[in-house]
Amino acid sequence: MDGQVKVAVIYYSATGITYQMARSAVEAAEEAGADVRLRKVRELAPDEAIRSNSGWQAHRLETQDVMEAEPDDLSWADVVIMGSPTRYGMIAAQLKQFIDTTGPLWANGALADKVYTGFTSTATSHGGQEATLLSLYTIFYHWGGVVVTPGYTDPSQFVAGNPYGASHTSNNGEVAPDHVALAATALTAKRAALMGAALKRGMAG
Amino acid sequence: MDGQVKVAVIYYSATGITYQMARSAVEAAEEAGADVRLRKVRELAPDEAIRSNSGWQAHRLETQDVMEAEPDDLSWADVVIMGSPTRYGMIAAQLKQFIDTTGPLWANGALADKVYTGFTSTATSHGGQEATLLSLYTIFYHWGGVVVTPGYTDPSQFVAGNPYGASHTSNNGEVAPDHVALAATALTAKRAALMGAALKRGMAG
Amino acid sequence: MDGQVKVAVIYYSATGITYQMARSAVEAAEEAGADVRLRKVRELAPDEAIRSNSGWQAHRLETQDVMEAEPDDLSWADVVIMGSPTRYGMIAAQLKQFIDTTGPLWANGALADKVYTGFTSTATSHGGQEATLLSLYTIFYHWGGVVVTPGYTDPSQFVAGNPYGASHTSNNGEVAPDHVALAATALTAKRAALMGAALKRGMAG
Amino acid sequence: MDGQVKVAVIYYSATGITYQMARSAVEAAEEAGADVRLRKVRELAPDEAIRSNSGWQAHRLETQDVMEAEPDDLSWADVVIMGSPTRYGMIAAQLKQFIDTTGPLWANGALADKVYTGFTSTATSHGGQEATLLSLYTIFYHWGGVVVTPGYTDPSQFVAGNPYGASHTSNNGEVAPDHVALAATALTAKRAALMGAALKRGMAG
Repeated sequence: MDGQVKVAVIYYSATGITYQMARSAVEAAEEAGADVRLRKVRELAPDEAIRSNSGWQAHRLETQDVMEAEPDDLSWADVVIMGSPTRYGMIAAQLKQFIDTTGPLWANGALADKVYTGFTSTATSHGGQEATLLSLYTIFYHWGGVVVTPGYTDPSQFVAGNPYGASHTSNNGEVAPDHVALAATALTAKRAALMGAALKRGMAG
Repeated sequence: MDGQVKVAVIYYSATGITYQMARSAVEAAEEAGADVRLRKVRELAPDEAIRSNSGWQAHRLETQDVMEAEPDDLSWADVVIMGSPTRYGMIAAQLKQFIDTTGPLWANGALADKVYTGFTSTATSHGGQEATLLSLYTIFYHWGGVVVTPGYTDPSQFVAGNPYGASHTSNNGEVAPDHVALAATALTAKRAALMGAALKRGMAG
Repeated sequence: MDGQVKVAVIYYSATGITYQMARSAVEAAEEAGADVRLRKVRELAPDEAIRSNSGWQAHRLETQDVMEAEPDDLSWADVVIMGSPTRYGMIAAQLKQFIDTTGPLWANGALADKVYTGFTSTATSHGGQEATLLSLYTIFYHWGGVVVTPGYTDPSQFVAGNPYGASHTSNNGEVAPDHVALAATALTAKRAALMGAALKRGMAG
Repeated sequence: MDGQVKVAVIYYSATGITYQMARSAVEAAEEAGADVRLRKVRELAPDEAIRSNSGWQAHRLETQDVMEAEPDDLSWADVVIMGSPTRYGMIAAQLKQFIDTTGPLWANGALADKVYTGFTSTATSHGGQEATLLSLYTIFYHWGGVVVTPGYTDPSQFVAGNPYGASHTSNNGEVAPDHVALAATALTAKRAALMGAALKRGMAG
């Protein structure tokens, strides 16, 4: 139906950590009543780099059927949730490259007035869990986006501990997201979906 | 009426530059149909420092009847617009001190789910116009706030040029905000008020 | 002697967590051969607020003999290490107020060409450990400072996990800094002191 | 000679604006006595996108003889100066992709203890001139870098106005860097080169 909130979960993942978080976001958004698209961004690394890392290669095969993100996924959505492992306190180049192709949509105003949020995973505990999300949100301000983060709006956030979004310490991909990280991702996604639905209702009348 | 959106404009100003921007925000929010409170934060500087600067002293007298902000102004509002001159790329200590007294409200969740935005003035053209606003918004994420900035949602933003909020280069308080800066402040405030009203309607029903 | 590197450790602490980190910084800088000043910034909270919190009151008494920071401590130093608990992802107003009084030094260039770094403590694990330090460093750029952080220059940083400086999760002041946090603070201070000494030697000839 | 400071200027430029700034950085670093490498990062955009933009195509031809950056250029250098147009308040994906290939150098500590700084160009006056540089510097903290910005260490900075580095408003590539922007780039580069030389001397003895 027309009033249903549309959520795009757009992510980059090398060895699958961020992908697991993305799936948690998808489930939570669907439970919140949203129509959800899960999309990976295009890989930039050469095949030989991927093949030299068994985890990377395995994950590529595991997600070969996940559709690649297109700019249209952004214009379609009411709510956009982006996820990326950190690369030195900033999103990975793969996600940035997708973002950098949105110029025409931005110029048309097609990215404005949507709800945006994010999630990330890092190698060490304070090696970008905050910085990656905060610098990602700077992008959304350029788009005229409405940024919604979990804050401490749920008691679980005092355990998960990141008011800027969901995050996980993977120890370089060796530690899968635990229930705390997955629940924080679900909370972030659910909150964004509900806020996006409320904003959509409110703007309509 | 109950459904009217409530906007709190909370600012610090030494010599009056930021105050002029605050007044522009108030007018724009009222024109957008909001019930508006204008509040200054408490001064921290000693009397002798203020008296030694004629502009500072004059502005204090000019605004002696503006009420001082109380934490209740935040819980009352649906939309909070904060303004401060930059002090080295960050809001002035006076505004930070007000913010730091909100712990009880934060712990109660009384700051969440509101729309937040900001404006600033700086001495030089790139001496904090972006950094002051972006670091201010980090605070709002802690509160569970919904951050709404102007982006490039209006053609005037390609002239004003700051997608993160309204800003002005004062050359150390010597240059009053021109029509570009005041219009950008009005746009920022109007957009926040309208988004706050939409979110309020949407969350109600 | 003239060539000895001078380090100022300037901090704000309410209940003593950040003070313990400051002491660790002092010890490490002294071990690295520096002449060190430990300075607290002036309290802004009213007496009644402090008295209503037993930990805050006790810490005030504990450190009544620590000298208050003056702007001259900054011009004296070759290396400045600042510490503050986070307040919503930003330094406390008390430290900001001290910083905001440095205008005359800044205008004279007396804050430039020094090494700067920082440490922080937060209530939850990702509630400002990165953002507080990164926004603090923005201030130092205004001063013409040279910012030196620990990065991952020591294996212990893969455990402590914050490349931007030293940090600790205090659970609202209930958990004292453990050896990991204190060692990270020491590493941060030692590295800043050594870099400051090298820069001083190098600039001298 | 062995003691000569080595400077790598690494940039991305689409239509040539950032390239002009890079050349200004090169000249200033050479005048400061440095051995300088100018390197462009690899293009990620498809040929058809480049060919559809006459300025982009012309610039590609103009700089076809500029060598592409390799990770070794970073380990070789004492001072690294990076430049990129903003893409939504963050460096372009092309530069990020180069940065993301430095994992092995980072893991070896080969990126630490160098001086880093940056420059950028933006479409509108406050559309990333600060945010692009500040988020770039977050990367350098991960590397154990020493970040040196111009601050207001030269009177010209009160005109150029960006204490975080050099920047230029290009109006989407239509306005070439003027003498203010080029002089600010030169100042930024010269200061980094001199600081890098001093640090190198100081660390050696």
